Amino acid sequence: MTTMRALVYAGKGQPILEERPRPQILAATDAVVKMVKGTICGTDLHILKGDVATCAPGRILGHEGTGVVHSIGASVTTFKPGDRVILSCITSCMSCEFCRKGLASHCVDGGWVLGHSIDGTQAEYVRVPHADGSLHHLVSGASEAAQVMCSDVLPTGFECGVLSGRVKPGSSLAIIGGGPVGLGVMLTAQLYSPSTLIMITRDANRLKIAASLGATHCITFGPGAAEEVMALTGGRGVDTVIEAAGVPGTFELCQDLVAVGGTIANLGVHGCKVDLHLDKLWHKNITITTSLVDTVSTGMLLKLMDSGKIKPDVLVTHTFSFAEMLDAYSTFGAAAEHKAIKMIIDF
Amino acid sequence: MTTMRALVYAGKGQPILEERPRPQILAATDAVVKMVKGTICGTDLHILKGDVATCAPGRILGHEGTGVVHSIGASVTTFKPGDRVILSCITSCMSCEFCRKGLASHCVDGGWVLGHSIDGTQAEYVRVPHADGSLHHLVSGASEAAQVMCSDVLPTGFECGVLSGRVKPGSSLAIIGGGPVGLGVMLTAQLYSPSTLIMITRDANRLKIAASLGATHCITFGPGAAEEVMALTGGRGVDTVIEAAGVPGTFELCQDLVAVGGTIANLGVHGCKVDLHLDKLWHKNITITTSLVDTVSTGMLLKLMDSGKIKPDVLVTHTFSFAEMLDAYSTFGAAAEHKAIKMIIDF
Amino acid sequence: MTTMRALVYAGKGQPILEERPRPQILAATDAVVKMVKGTICGTDLHILKGDVATCAPGRILGHEGTGVVHSIGASVTTFKPGDRVILSCITSCMSCEFCRKGLASHCVDGGWVLGHSIDGTQAEYVRVPHADGSLHHLVSGASEAAQVMCSDVLPTGFECGVLSGRVKPGSSLAIIGGGPVGLGVMLTAQLYSPSTLIMITRDANRLKIAASLGATHCITFGPGAAEEVMALTGGRGVDTVIEAAGVPGTFELCQDLVAVGGTIANLGVHGCKVDLHLDKLWHKNITITTSLVDTVSTGMLLKLMDSGKIKPDVLVTHTFSFAEMLDAYSTFGAAAEHKAIKMIIDF
Amino acid sequence: MTTMRALVYAGKGQPILEERPRPQILAATDAVVKMVKGTICGTDLHILKGDVATCAPGRILGHEGTGVVHSIGASVTTFKPGDRVILSCITSCMSCEFCRKGLASHCVDGGWVLGHSIDGTQAEYVRVPHADGSLHHLVSGASEAAQVMCSDVLPTGFECGVLSGRVKPGSSLAIIGGGPVGLGVMLTAQLYSPSTLIMITRDANRLKIAASLGATHCITFGPGAAEEVMALTGGRGVDTVIEAAGVPGTFELCQDLVAVGGTIANLGVHGCKVDLHLDKLWHKNITITTSLVDTVSTGMLLKLMDSGKIKPDVLVTHTFSFAEMLDAYSTFGAAAEHKAIKMIIDF
Repeated sequence: MTTMRALVYAGKGQPILEERPRPQILAATDAVVKMVKGTICGTDLHILKGDVATCAPGRILGHEGTGVVHSIGASVTTFKPGDRVILSCITSCMSCEFCRKGLASHCVDGGWVLGHSIDGTQAEYVRVPHADGSLHHLVSGASEAAQVMCSDVLPTGFECGVLSGRVKPGSSLAIIGGGPVGLGVMLTAQLYSPSTLIMITRDANRLKIAASLGATHCITFGPGAAEEVMALTGGRGVDTVIEAAGVPGTFELCQDLVAVGGTIANLGVHGCKVDLHLDKLWHKNITITTSLVDTVSTGMLLKLMDSGKIKPDVLVTHTFSFAEMLDAYSTFGAAAEHKAIKMIIDF
Repeated sequence: MTTMRALVYAGKGQPILEERPRPQILAATDAVVKMVKGTICGTDLHILKGDVATCAPGRILGHEGTGVVHSIGASVTTFKPGDRVILSCITSCMSCEFCRKGLASHCVDGGWVLGHSIDGTQAEYVRVPHADGSLHHLVSGASEAAQVMCSDVLPTGFECGVLSGRVKPGSSLAIIGGGPVGLGVMLTAQLYSPSTLIMITRDANRLKIAASLGATHCITFGPGAAEEVMALTGGRGVDTVIEAAGVPGTFELCQDLVAVGGTIANLGVHGCKVDLHLDKLWHKNITITTSLVDTVSTGMLLKLMDSGKIKPDVLVTHTFSFAEMLDAYSTFGAAAEHKAIKMIIDF
Repeated sequence: MTTMRALVYAGKGQPILEERPRPQILAATDAVVKMVKGTICGTDLHILKGDVATCAPGRILGHEGTGVVHSIGASVTTFKPGDRVILSCITSCMSCEFCRKGLASHCVDGGWVLGHSIDGTQAEYVRVPHADGSLHHLVSGASEAAQVMCSDVLPTGFECGVLSGRVKPGSSLAIIGGGPVGLGVMLTAQLYSPSTLIMITRDANRLKIAASLGATHCITFGPGAAEEVMALTGGRGVDTVIEAAGVPGTFELCQDLVAVGGTIANLGVHGCKVDLHLDKLWHKNITITTSLVDTVSTGMLLKLMDSGKIKPDVLVTHTFSFAEMLDAYSTFGAAAEHKAIKMIIDF
Repeated sequence: MTTMRALVYAGKGQPILEERPRPQILAATDAVVKMVKGTICGTDLHILKGDVATCAPGRILGHEGTGVVHSIGASVTTFKPGDRVILSCITSCMSCEFCRKGLASHCVDGGWVLGHSIDGTQAEYVRVPHADGSLHHLVSGASEAAQVMCSDVLPTGFECGVLSGRVKPGSSLAIIGGGPVGLGVMLTAQLYSPSTLIMITRDANRLKIAASLGATHCITFGPGAAEEVMALTGGRGVDTVIEAAGVPGTFELCQDLVAVGGTIANLGVHGCKVDLHLDKLWHKNITITTSLVDTVSTGMLLKLMDSGKIKPDVLVTHTFSFAEMLDAYSTFGAAAEHKAIKMIIDF
């Protein structure tokens, strides 16, 4: 009874399900959570490809999901055993200089640690450090599967895309990349009522989903995309361009699309440097932002899900049991073929 | 009596002084100003090198200076003949969509036009379009030469460097480039009381001037500069890095110096693309800005010069009569050798 | 053919329809507009009651409406005869220190002048000073009657209520006063996606309209209202309270409702001083704002009406021909009895 | 050895020095600090007058000072015994909804508790709850007495006055009230380089001190003060008015002085309601703020004291030993007579 099943990164290209000891409370600020719903992130795929040097083989993957609090350390005050919770992808001590500035992504004793530098959520139990700063109570107005989107996808889309990109009532917005996070931007950008929302991606299925989520224009990524955007913005370009793909070609397109005075908000995880055309941009009064999510908006997003103003259910395209975890990885690894956005894993 | 002397860009490498007809009022919003003090900008050197394709031979150069209003169009309301004025490097109609957003740099009937797309201020008389939005009254609390710095150097340093770079009380700042605009940032950054002000440039004389203007640390540009900054910031890097040189190597250094959550404010005029290391920066929550000055701060800067809180006099290193204009260009063209920052031209 | 019909404030309690000379272009920045749709504002009623000392008898009333440009002065550049336009309640020269700061409400040669210090829009023709800064082109995506709401009601609700009140995604909002401007706040607050929108007013019909416009809670003004709000906010109070009635009792209620760290945005036109309970509020970290609209948001609001994201049609409850103008005043003067919100006047 | 001397509020008008048990660690987040330097706040006088109902007789007073950490609870991570520290007047748990919003003044398990709802710093030892969020390390670049000003006076002046009042480069500022906090505003306002700094107070000595701290104009409170301010601002009034006295008459003057678009920042502790002249202010686009300090700026202020950019030494006018504490109270209670600003108490 003291072991559990866990999805482990056993080395490049090797996800395995294995038996592991159940985690214990190690610090007074820890909680151990029994997982109920999980999911897989594109970052998990990167780790499995061996692209994330900071994640060593042997690690239990996963930084998203919901569960029930199983046990808590002596100084946890906000949660008690039995509480139904959402796990945040970012662990926050709430007291270091970064956390106090709202930069929990760079918490000196936290940040992105789950499924990265410590064992993660793709297991029956997970130890969550700094539980008071890293868990949220479930709300009653949305399904538990929908709330899994508040672990990472929605706060990342909102903070790194919508807030960094300074989306405003009546402004124009183009999102390059129709993956879960790009669609998370599409959903949460509407909290600020832009008048033009353009989705640009290669995948016809994702364009269709974007349209159902409120895109006013859907454009296939490729030659001619920039011209289409210029035509529909009267040659001005767009106020906010979201880079949600992480490759040089999409960052290039961002620079073609951004209007004078506009913003390029980068969400993509880049594996190499890109060209920045300062010779064309130095006098265009633009802003470029990079960001890892701080999850400072999670409580607010849950409140809006509770009152029915954000409905991310359409992002959940597949459901697997935890026993089928390797199938879930295969399906998500070939997302386009399977029309997959987010998998829900039932524990 | 209807001609005047003017410094004309006669072709690549050819500044000439020649006789030209005096400008006349062409539109109801114009003023004609008789020049009193002028100066030369690094951009004028770029034009003479043939680097600014949008400036055609035959153009009278110059976008800075002070003078006396000689005549005005029928709808000019803020100025009258005889008024002593400063000319702004940016012409603003005040009513287009850009001007109303505070982006006069992109005014649809203005922006940087003087000495660029229309004749400029290096002449005995100059026609200033949209005079109400493009001139300022001289103040009494500072020398006229000092106020010439409000045509371009100080508003550019303040808006594109200090404001775009979000300098704050107690924050840290590194300026890469000790030219007039870099020193303009040094002067105006102190309006926001940063605790650490680092000047990084190659020129020992300019480092000395920076120290006299308030730099807390002076570092010679070159190998080891990044390490010095890291050592004095406890490995954190600086909150605001100002790129005031415009070459790939300095933009590269900016990326090495910027702290998590910090800002790189680009002021340099770049002639080619640069590398942006998104593979290292995507998760550092940084902001990069590019800007051409909007001169929205000019009135405020003049007010502070009037009350003695900004003293840019040290930036004026040389004075020439207008008849010596070609010598002034030679001296400014070899600025390091002559320990030159800004030339004042007396008409 | 050189006269027109006009609604004139002939003295306390005396609105009259009389023949007046048609207005002419007086300044190069003027336009004369032939009115198509007008309306009546609560302020017009105040003038008729003799409450607005700055408005002298003999004045043609009205500061709202749409029309067709009939003639323009020599320096008007954005509009030409034949253009279909909306008139802004605020006249902006765009160049004085206030206009440049975004405070057109206090324009030194404008502000609220129409139907106040110069003749207004309740006439077949009206002269509009500073036409470039004071007119907007009609959009095609909304009815002309709906666009009349952009003369005053919607920008006032948005700027003085939503922006001054710092409404944010997930925040809570209470509006005290269900008149046209209070309902304008209800409509435009949703551009920022608050999670709780409370309407508090005496009039059951207006509570019903508020509910149809998106109010999440409707409360009858009177004893017990504060308790109801406290109950539904868990005792915290609301983040933003909008005073849209202009009497001491409603301002009193605002102070009871505002949460720690919250904002009271005053839109009401007050005829006397009020009590401010600093003994209870000095440590509650609240903000109180007062504002006259600057109409800086009008273009943005029209863009969102054009794209169907704001639909104010329900605010139009009655339509009269201009010949029936006195009936329109009677109906609007007894608004509650007639379930009147905004009258449309057809010219 | 387990008792200590303490200044106790024994009832209305009765400060007494008595022997008390030394405080012990009660919670894992506590520290016990041995006091080195203390001071007296105007609020302590209010308590002694019986004006603060929430403070019961028997309480050890004081919420300011420096000391040495004597012992810590198990979960304190930033401080260890022997550390030299400044105590903040506000206790912050760093994790409640208010602390996370930057509103530590309303911390659900903290806020202003020291010398109020728990025993305070006017004793040889004090227990500090939530030590990680409520202490700061001393810096080496300023005297210990100067750093006592960072317990309350400077962060209150800066946050509640300068930040709430939105002081900006080139703006104008009037401070009504020349007590320690008013002078704290004078000192810290200059971090934002206003061009006009007006001190208005009754006390000639404090006007002189204000002038030495940078006031550009000093005006005696009384009839004619408003006219003087209007004369020196060209009839415009001032952008920021600071209420630092807490009585109806000074709040009245604030309303006379504030410019269109300006801010009244209230710092005064008011004992009764005041008149708010909404009939005159409803259309002036002003902002009024109330605030209790959140001490979020303390670290930044210490950094600037360390680098010599803030020098509050002149505020320290008297020094007493702790044994002379009752004399210190007498002197401070007749501050004008003794030309007293802040007392330093040496333990």
